[in-house]
Amino acid sequence: MLDPSLIAELTAVVGPDNIAAGKQDLICYGYDATQMEFLPDAVVHPANPEEVSAVLKLANRAGFPVFPRGAGSGFTGGALPKGGGVVLVTTRMNRILRIDTENLIAEVEPGVVTEQFQIAVEKLGFFYPPDPASLKFSTLGGNVAENAGGPRCVKYGVTRDFVMGLEIVLPTGEIIRTGGETYKAVVGYDMTRLLCGSEGTLGVITKIIFKILPLPDAKKTMLTIFDSIDGAAKAVSTIIGNKIIPTTLEFMDHATLQCVEKRFSLGVPPEGRAVLLIEVDGDRDLIEKQAAQIHELIKPLGLVQFRAAQDANESEELWRIRRLVSPSLRDINPTKYNEDIVVPRSKVPDIIRTIEKIQAKYDIPIVNFGHAGDGNIHVNIMIDKAIPGMEEKAHSAIKDVFQAALDLNGTMSGEHGVGLSKAPYIELELSPVQIAAMKAIKAALDPNNILNPGKMFPWREK
Amino acid sequence: MLDPSLIAELTAVVGPDNIAAGKQDLICYGYDATQMEFLPDAVVHPANPEEVSAVLKLANRAGFPVFPRGAGSGFTGGALPKGGGVVLVTTRMNRILRIDTENLIAEVEPGVVTEQFQIAVEKLGFFYPPDPASLKFSTLGGNVAENAGGPRCVKYGVTRDFVMGLEIVLPTGEIIRTGGETYKAVVGYDMTRLLCGSEGTLGVITKIIFKILPLPDAKKTMLTIFDSIDGAAKAVSTIIGNKIIPTTLEFMDHATLQCVEKRFSLGVPPEGRAVLLIEVDGDRDLIEKQAAQIHELIKPLGLVQFRAAQDANESEELWRIRRLVSPSLRDINPTKYNEDIVVPRSKVPDIIRTIEKIQAKYDIPIVNFGHAGDGNIHVNIMIDKAIPGMEEKAHSAIKDVFQAALDLNGTMSGEHGVGLSKAPYIELELSPVQIAAMKAIKAALDPNNILNPGKMFPWREK
Repeated sequence: MLDPSLIAELTAVVGPDNIAAGKQDLICYGYDATQMEFLPDAVVHPANPEEVSAVLKLANRAGFPVFPRGAGSGFTGGALPKGGGVVLVTTRMNRILRIDTENLIAEVEPGVVTEQFQIAVEKLGFFYPPDPASLKFSTLGGNVAENAGGPRCVKYGVTRDFVMGLEIVLPTGEIIRTGGETYKAVVGYDMTRLLCGSEGTLGVITKIIFKILPLPDAKKTMLTIFDSIDGAAKAVSTIIGNKIIPTTLEFMDHATLQCVEKRFSLGVPPEGRAVLLIEVDGDRDLIEKQAAQIHELIKPLGLVQFRAAQDANESEELWRIRRLVSPSLRDINPTKYNEDIVVPRSKVPDIIRTIEKIQAKYDIPIVNFGHAGDGNIHVNIMIDKAIPGMEEKAHSAIKDVFQAALDLNGTMSGEHGVGLSKAPYIELELSPVQIAAMKAIKAALDPNNILNPGKMFPWREK
Repeated sequence: MLDPSLIAELTAVVGPDNIAAGKQDLICYGYDATQMEFLPDAVVHPANPEEVSAVLKLANRAGFPVFPRGAGSGFTGGALPKGGGVVLVTTRMNRILRIDTENLIAEVEPGVVTEQFQIAVEKLGFFYPPDPASLKFSTLGGNVAENAGGPRCVKYGVTRDFVMGLEIVLPTGEIIRTGGETYKAVVGYDMTRLLCGSEGTLGVITKIIFKILPLPDAKKTMLTIFDSIDGAAKAVSTIIGNKIIPTTLEFMDHATLQCVEKRFSLGVPPEGRAVLLIEVDGDRDLIEKQAAQIHELIKPLGLVQFRAAQDANESEELWRIRRLVSPSLRDINPTKYNEDIVVPRSKVPDIIRTIEKIQAKYDIPIVNFGHAGDGNIHVNIMIDKAIPGMEEKAHSAIKDVFQAALDLNGTMSGEHGVGLSKAPYIELELSPVQIAAMKAIKAALDPNNILNPGKMFPWREK
């Protein structure tokens, strides 16, 4: 519980309309896309970096934790106020400040919704590629804090690759700029990229300078179905090895395919065991040539079906199978644990086979799909919490899946981050020395451990 | 002076053949590409991370500084042992450990020479784009520590964009891995990018995992000459605005052009005031189309000459004018101060005009060339130290040039870093709070200030 005098001080900072401490309001800021929920003591909606700074300075003085939050669409509890404290919501800072098409940069506030920014940039003939699945509601500040990915990363890179500079409020309340408006810039440490993916633990992002690109002329979508997971995986490395870097290489395993087919009867050939949805973009002539080349290259790999879209409508039709995955999964079981491991792309068949074994070991349904071009597999463990013991089995299965990814030189997370939900497992991936070095950086910038405490690392009682 | 017992301990670590403490040996490791020189007390050549670790642990125990060094080709004194101590040379760790063409990654030791790595990768049909001018002798470890750039960055990005993971020895001697083999990876803080450009102050790099790309099919070089700097700058934004991102957009101003022409009589038309050397790469048909498109786009911008190479020999011929710049400059004056400011690319004409005024103010020759696509201008102040007062005027001019770049939202350095030579100016670019945050990170990882002390920041006596 926050002392009423602190509530009064916070109210003086953000104004009475921009603070909430009533239970019904607090509930709205205590959840995210996980199953977890924690009530904060208060929620503030600052309008600018100066108000963020005042909140953080007060927090350092009074000793309460502050949890930055965008749209709350995270998958790991990264924005949740575990243990109570103040949730700091960035969504009032939601202006696109400028789009400079001559220098290919844009400056935005953190509360801008990802898709809104993409639309604004595309209207001018330009392009912001990162496309996390949450783009219709997630904010750009959250995207940077989590270093969000998406299907297009295989060609264009992750959110970090588009962040050129930031304005941040340090945990102690000072406002600083990092990076800038030029892509080449090597004066001082790279605080910009240190902030990317730091999950709101090292600073509150209040402005972002993004790199943007010219919008590609055209794109071409291909739906390809293979008779084995190996064929689909081999297709990925064959295409890339032949100098074609597609925009997306989205993959669905047999279990996913069966699930969608059962619900929506799309007419997938029964011998189909894996889907690869391929998209290339760029010069109109070149992508037609590349599509033909891709067809030739993958024919010998157990190709069961190849459909290439001739226009935007057909492209939408081909994407339908991928979009129907989520609505289909709940037919298996009501609760989904969605993990996002990554392995080197040549190891995709190995990890899928290992996951099949884990599924058999625990007798628990697991379906896999994701971004094959990056080796980034979304592992969906579908459970019914009403069935006794199923949740525990799911947690054991998750740990086995993480270990399997690590054994193949992969990582536990390619997009979602660590937050609260993966913190108990982080020692599988990072050594004690690595964790100590990261915690030393955290302590250097946040000596009172005010900003988003309890996240990412295992924070044991001293 | 190091105590003889410490020399004995260091000898025990690296072996008697891999340590030097005689004056003639020390001289070889006390200089770089600047005019500065500082003698170390000893030079060690460790063979592996364990030996690096032992050296650093000893340094922490005994309290002597350690200066990591690759080829010593830096432009800012970043590897120089100012104040004495031990130079740690990484060039014995010079193996290319693997090139994995299926996953498009390569793992190398830090002492591999940049060009040797490029050649090895290209032999297999793949591509490592970063191409600092020093690539024939600079090492990859140094490239990462400085976040090296080069002409191709406008399309492909800087060294940082190709670093996926590192093995580093922390200043306190612990060996850790950062990042890994997958491009998407968001577990823990991004220590990998924090190390990129940290100028050897946060860790000694002992292994690097690079991303590599498929080698483009073909490239096409165009030499274009304009009647004004504005025409050349407008050409850059026009080309990019029309969705063509060239591999390189190398620029030379009028003073540079005159200097080369005077020495080598290449037959540049007298109305030529600025050169843009343009290269596009990729699909063979596409680049021919792009070259024709570029020609049409830039015709109205005061184009005086347009030559497009038809083959590799002609391409070499067109690059000749750029390669002759350095040999020509010494005709002006014997000593060159080479700065590498960056401005948003649309501001290139503004910065060139401001530099012309600075040149007039101090009556000192300045020639500019560089990577116009990135707004990265190499400002070369040519002086004769024998002329009284000229060196002081040069330093005043440098400060004015830095300030002019910053006034245009640019940076003091796009490629060379800060090191010793720009440390006195860093407060022009970074605020006290930014510097304090960076120093806090340095102190967190290097509590005894052992590793490359005195670099990057203004380290005043307490």
